[in-house]
Amino acid sequence: MEAGERIALGGEDGSAFAAVATGTLYGVGMGPGEPEYLTVRAMRVLERAPVLVHFCKKGRRGNARTIADAILRDPAREFPLVYPYTTELPPDHVEYVSALAGFYDDAAGRLADHLGAGRDVAILSEGDPFFYGSFMHLWRRLKDRFPVEVVPGVTGMSGCWTRAGTPITWGDDVLTVLPATLPHPALVERLRGTDAAVIMKLGRHLPKVRAALTETGLLARAVYVERGTMAGERVVALADKPDDDAPYFSMVLVPGEGRRP
Amino acid sequence: MEAGERIALGGEDGSAFAAVATGTLYGVGMGPGEPEYLTVRAMRVLERAPVLVHFCKKGRRGNARTIADAILRDPAREFPLVYPYTTELPPDHVEYVSALAGFYDDAAGRLADHLGAGRDVAILSEGDPFFYGSFMHLWRRLKDRFPVEVVPGVTGMSGCWTRAGTPITWGDDVLTVLPATLPHPALVERLRGTDAAVIMKLGRHLPKVRAALTETGLLARAVYVERGTMAGERVVALADKPDDDAPYFSMVLVPGEGRRP
Repeated sequence: MEAGERIALGGEDGSAFAAVATGTLYGVGMGPGEPEYLTVRAMRVLERAPVLVHFCKKGRRGNARTIADAILRDPAREFPLVYPYTTELPPDHVEYVSALAGFYDDAAGRLADHLGAGRDVAILSEGDPFFYGSFMHLWRRLKDRFPVEVVPGVTGMSGCWTRAGTPITWGDDVLTVLPATLPHPALVERLRGTDAAVIMKLGRHLPKVRAALTETGLLARAVYVERGTMAGERVVALADKPDDDAPYFSMVLVPGEGRRP
Repeated sequence: MEAGERIALGGEDGSAFAAVATGTLYGVGMGPGEPEYLTVRAMRVLERAPVLVHFCKKGRRGNARTIADAILRDPAREFPLVYPYTTELPPDHVEYVSALAGFYDDAAGRLADHLGAGRDVAILSEGDPFFYGSFMHLWRRLKDRFPVEVVPGVTGMSGCWTRAGTPITWGDDVLTVLPATLPHPALVERLRGTDAAVIMKLGRHLPKVRAALTETGLLARAVYVERGTMAGERVVALADKPDDDAPYFSMVLVPGEGRRP
C-alpha cells in the first residue's frame, strides 16, 4: 500500500497511518523543578524529539524550559509558545478566554504542521501533563488527529511535600487539592471536610487562605512552600509567613494525621 | 576531631556526624509501575545504595520490587520486609494495629543496624513515598536518628489517569482523593463537594463506590483503571465494570470538567 492510500484511509486506521505519515505528540511531564526528578521516559523523549516546545510569558523563560536547562543543548529544535499579553484580566473574563482560545488554536496549528509533516513534537509540561497546566488545551485540539503519548511526571505538590519533609497522607486520609481562587466560604467548607489539603495558585489570595485555615483550626498544621525543589526554595510554617503576594510556584500544605501504627 | 568524638556529639550536629559515621535512609519513589517512569534520581540511588529493602506480603513479591526487576540484578544487597500475617482483620482492629506496630518497630531496628554501621539503606516505595504507603512508618521511626533523603515519584494515580487518556483537573477544578473504605454517606458528601475525584483502595468496596457515584450523578464520568502502567493494565468505564472484587492496584477516576478555553 502506498503512503498516499494510507493518508486517504487515515481516519479509519489512525495508528497504522500515523506510524507511516505523521509525528507523535508527546506531553512530557517535567516534574516539580529539580532536573533529577525527570523520569527516564521523559529524558528519552526529550533526547529524541525533533521539535520541542514550551509555554512562557512574553519576555520570560518558561519554568518547564528552565528545568530542561540541565539537559537540552540544541536550541535549533525548540520554540516557545508565548501566552498572549493581558492586563491581568481574571481567568473567566470573556476577553481573556477568547484571547487564550485564539492562542491555543494558533499553537495547535503550528504543532499540527510539524506533526503532519511526520515530525514528533514534545510539549514540555511542568509537573504532570494531565494535572492542571496548559498542555491539556493543545492535547484537546490535536488528540483526534495525531497519535499522542503522555509521559506522567512528579507533580509540583509531591516536590513540595518532599522538601517540606512531611508525609501528606497516612492510612485512610482524604486529600483535597484546592485552588486558592475559591471564595472564602467554599475554602472553609472544603477544608472542613478533609484530612489533608494542598492549596495552590496562592498569588494574592494568601490572606483569604490564612483566614480559612484559621477558621477551620488548621493554621498550626499549615506549611508554606515556595519554589519547591527549585533554586530559591523556601519552606516555612504558614504562621510565620507574612501576607504579601505569593509567587506562582508556591503552595500551602496541610499534612494529614491519619493512622500511624 | 576523632570519629569517636563525633559520635558523642552526634545529637547536636546530626548532619556532620552523619556524613562521617552513619548511612542515609532513602525513601525511593518507584512510580506507578512502568520502570521508565522512575526518576533519574531514583535510578541513581538504586544503583548506589548498598542495602535495598522492599515491603511484601508473605509468599508474594512486593509490587515496588517488581517495578525494579528491569533495573536490579544484585540480590545480595536486598532483603524483603514481610508484613505480618493477619486473617484479614480490619485496619483499625487493635490486634492488627499492634501486630503492624511491632512489625514496623522490628523493621526499623533492622534498618537502624545497617544505617548505624554506615551503610545507606534505600526503601523501595510504590508511587511517591510521602503519599500513603508504608515507607512513612519507618521514616517516622528513624528520621530523628539518621539523615534522610526522600526521592519523590510519579504517583499511582498519575499513572492511571495517564493511561486512561484523560486529564484529571482543568483550570480551577478541586480534586479530592478518597479511600473507598469511607462509609457511604461520607463518600457521597465528599463527592458532592468536588469537581474531580480519585477513589482508591477499592477492594470489596466497589458496590458502595458505585452507589455513591450514582447518587451524585457522577457514574457516567467514572473510569475504572486496574494495574495502570503495569502488565495486565485495564481501563474501562465504571458503568461497564461488574461489581466483583477490585484488586489492590485499581482505582476509580472522575475527571474534572473545568475551564477549557
